[in-house]
Amino acid sequence: MAFGWIDEQAAVRRRAGLVRTLRPRPAESPLLDLASNDYLGLARHPEITEGAAEAARRWGGGATGSRLVTGTTELHGELERELADFTGFEAALVFSSGYAANLAAVTALAPHGSLVVSDAGNHASLIDGCRLARGTTQVVAHADPEAVRKALGTHAGPAVAVSDTVFSVDGDAAPLAELAAACREYGAGLVVDDAHGLGVLGDGGRGAPYAAGLAGAPDVVVTVTLSKSLGSQGGAVLGPAHVIDHLVNAARTFIFDTGLAPAATGAALAALRLLRREPERAARAREVARELHTRLTASGHEAVRPDAAVVSVRAPSADQAVRWAADCRTAGLAVGCFRPPSVPDGISRLRLTARADLTEGQIDRAVGIIGDTRP
Amino acid sequence: MAFGWIDEQAAVRRRAGLVRTLRPRPAESPLLDLASNDYLGLARHPEITEGAAEAARRWGGGATGSRLVTGTTELHGELERELADFTGFEAALVFSSGYAANLAAVTALAPHGSLVVSDAGNHASLIDGCRLARGTTQVVAHADPEAVRKALGTHAGPAVAVSDTVFSVDGDAAPLAELAAACREYGAGLVVDDAHGLGVLGDGGRGAPYAAGLAGAPDVVVTVTLSKSLGSQGGAVLGPAHVIDHLVNAARTFIFDTGLAPAATGAALAALRLLRREPERAARAREVARELHTRLTASGHEAVRPDAAVVSVRAPSADQAVRWAADCRTAGLAVGCFRPPSVPDGISRLRLTARADLTEGQIDRAVGIIGDTRP
Repeated sequence: MAFGWIDEQAAVRRRAGLVRTLRPRPAESPLLDLASNDYLGLARHPEITEGAAEAARRWGGGATGSRLVTGTTELHGELERELADFTGFEAALVFSSGYAANLAAVTALAPHGSLVVSDAGNHASLIDGCRLARGTTQVVAHADPEAVRKALGTHAGPAVAVSDTVFSVDGDAAPLAELAAACREYGAGLVVDDAHGLGVLGDGGRGAPYAAGLAGAPDVVVTVTLSKSLGSQGGAVLGPAHVIDHLVNAARTFIFDTGLAPAATGAALAALRLLRREPERAARAREVARELHTRLTASGHEAVRPDAAVVSVRAPSADQAVRWAADCRTAGLAVGCFRPPSVPDGISRLRLTARADLTEGQIDRAVGIIGDTRP
Repeated sequence: MAFGWIDEQAAVRRRAGLVRTLRPRPAESPLLDLASNDYLGLARHPEITEGAAEAARRWGGGATGSRLVTGTTELHGELERELADFTGFEAALVFSSGYAANLAAVTALAPHGSLVVSDAGNHASLIDGCRLARGTTQVVAHADPEAVRKALGTHAGPAVAVSDTVFSVDGDAAPLAELAAACREYGAGLVVDDAHGLGVLGDGGRGAPYAAGLAGAPDVVVTVTLSKSLGSQGGAVLGPAHVIDHLVNAARTFIFDTGLAPAATGAALAALRLLRREPERAARAREVARELHTRLTASGHEAVRPDAAVVSVRAPSADQAVRWAADCRTAGLAVGCFRPPSVPDGISRLRLTARADLTEGQIDRAVGIIGDTRP
């Protein structure tokens, strides 16, 4: 009885064809994967899995406590130093997820009396950060520095603009340099989530802020995830040392969460070192995305030109998107399917991720299946 | 300039002696650990670390996507089935952290128009869940079923009461059976966080709800963490299958987060299996806590009688708590130190965790050091 209202909601979802179910995958899937966020194909790389295994054996199965009590190992420190160095920022702070890193960055940098200017296309975790923050949030038009400028102009006191660098749904990039310029005019900070940029954009995968000339800027804070191009789990905040110190002291999702497990820390560190050694992986992911886009649009699909490694293909409706993705799966291809309520604009899509390790043969196969199953 | 206000806050913290800094620990610490939440001493157990290592090798360094896309492996399914079976609930859903599990449970079960009745001593993650929820939150006195009853009586429509089962700061238990009875009178649900109960309370560590006769109840939802007694990372929600299905469809920290890494999933699964084989570990953790409490109070310390494995010892002031913990550390003992703003009542404490694998000699040493360094 207590949870009876849940069944009414479930019935509505069923009628609308919007029920989500979990589909556990086996260790060796027969599907060609264009659905994961494993942009560099590192999640199954032996150096990365061995990095995880070795860290678990040496440091334990878990971090055992909050980062402020027993949850910080020297391994966390190592990863933080190398992440900061790689991306060009003064300091880094590792979290148990990118979600937690975003909650931390937004809430800690938007105190009572401050303004948060948030892009309408931002990720759920940034939106939840805005909701939790003590400051006031103003949502502005997608990728619109002029709208950010206008919002900042209405406010006196601390302010930040918050944006994804690469938007997850359509794979389009934010105008970072222009956003930073707008923020600087008003003395505001810029907080950007580079979840889909790190490992893909910038010299050798140093990320979108690096590519935009913002690495190490005193008024820019970047969040990243360790669970996409780095093939592991966790997130991090990069920025000036005094901002990172502030997060250590003020961010609830840092203070009151158990530290990232050693295995995830070790896997991310191994991936970062591999990426430094093989910087061409980042360019290859972008190249695969461009190739997918070119070939799909050439055969009449409506796809957004990719700024990173996400290729978004529009579907006529939510139902047809679901059927299209299911037909791809039957034919041996895993693709993402975004539909309401996960899409800000109500448009359903197939979402393809361009892994750096896809072969030309695999790209052929993917393009063929997507065409053959088109609704 | 954008983040100038941070430096003013930092100066205030410095003057108040409340600056938090990270202290990375080596793999083999010379300190006796009474500070971690590794209640059963499993984080470094070879079966658990090998469970992590093996899972990373077999399934990869990361889950590669949202649980709804590519992030659910058969290993996640296995852990969810065994967790539900062990704790006596119909279904379980694994998250990347206990924090994320709490945000999910509270937000998804407190829709617009609902009431959340929240214990004043609840963990930060439950509080953040209340802040994010669309429903209205009413904070009530700590561990007070009568106050819960009174709050529920003021509301028509869906309602939940939310509470920790064991409160992290003082280690005291919530009156679960009475809370459930109060909720039932009003047709409300009960959501409890068993982070410090799982593996410690209940038959063989099945948790506080199991001990209170609430396992499998249709109106009870439990959150747990995999990062404390199970020595890994992550969290889970346990409850009726339709509630779990609802979370899959509605909980943002489930839908928009990368799945828990295989290594953490494998470590938690190994720990759960070990606990089933060696159920006496749970009782031993409680026994160590009682022994610590008895010996500390016998020598004149003011300590709260432990309901689980946390022993809280009061300190005269925040400054003296910090110094006491530091002196313990110098003498070779790691203890937790809770002080404002992490304590709801402004009272600073040493926080000791009673690991099941502490020897009598180690308990002697710990009690000796705490006495010798007393402010």
